Amino acid sequence: ARPRVGYFYAGRGENRILLERIRSFKVKDFHAPPIVIFESESVYEAIVRLFLEDVGTLYILDKDRLLAGVVSRKDLLRAALGNKDLTKIPVGVIMTRMPHIYTTTPEESVYDAAKKLIVHEVDSLPVVVPRSGWVGGWEVVGRFTKTTVTRAFLALAEEDED
Amino acid sequence: ARPRVGYFYAGRGENRILLERIRSFKVKDFHAPPIVIFESESVYEAIVRLFLEDVGTLYILDKDRLLAGVVSRKDLLRAALGNKDLTKIPVGVIMTRMPHIYTTTPEESVYDAAKKLIVHEVDSLPVVVPRSGWVGGWEVVGRFTKTTVTRAFLALAEEDED
Repeated sequence: ARPRVGYFYAGRGENRILLERIRSFKVKDFHAPPIVIFESESVYEAIVRLFLEDVGTLYILDKDRLLAGVVSRKDLLRAALGNKDLTKIPVGVIMTRMPHIYTTTPEESVYDAAKKLIVHEVDSLPVVVPRSGWVGGWEVVGRFTKTTVTRAFLALAEEDED
Repeated sequence: ARPRVGYFYAGRGENRILLERIRSFKVKDFHAPPIVIFESESVYEAIVRLFLEDVGTLYILDKDRLLAGVVSRKDLLRAALGNKDLTKIPVGVIMTRMPHIYTTTPEESVYDAAKKLIVHEVDSLPVVVPRSGWVGGWEVVGRFTKTTVTRAFLALAEEDED
């Protein structure tokens, strides 16, 4: 279904180069800063934060600042429809909780992370690194979204202009 | 800031091929079906539709089935916070109205459409074709989102595997 017009030639060598090039893009080269909130904060706080930061997903931290969950615009919309006092409900109650969360790492390829977004039908992957020691878990160092992939797609097209 | 590791060589010829290839991807080859609702339907209906179809943006049609506006998850969340009776508010009241909407066409390149998403900071572009005649305007034939670009990115990487 994909058009092959505009390809002048496509020997195996050129294909290999394109493939290597796309797969050389790493999460750490494109990801955005994470927008986080503690699980004890209210759903109302989470909604305000989402609007102020203009993001689609917030990452939720536990008291040790480790990844506890994820909350999306859709989760918040569902909660807002409930018509309860949103300042009284902790965001931890409505979030999707670890380990039911897909994540990525700084060293993963944009290609592999993008595949997770599509396969698991999620909008966002927290970029995590392990924290070892007394309290183990995942520290959140970035966010990887379809916006990230869109930026990578444009970068791929534009770096060839010079 | 972009990594150049993993590129074995990058003469002008190969760059040209990659560029042509990326830009040959057209909106019509990747876009998804549009999810639409009439402007006279309620905000509540719009929210239900958004959940059932699992999309981020709905396109709003006027009585002639032409594009009248766009409503996002964020617009609906804002309306839901207002705590009024959402079944009484027409979605046309809260939508972003034409002509303040960025659109794309089936023949536009994925590259140009992706650039609009990033530059204008929107989540979705209605894919439109003109309707001429007595009542002129835009018919909506698809939706173009960051999910579309993510799929195009993966297609680019994967078509080289054979």
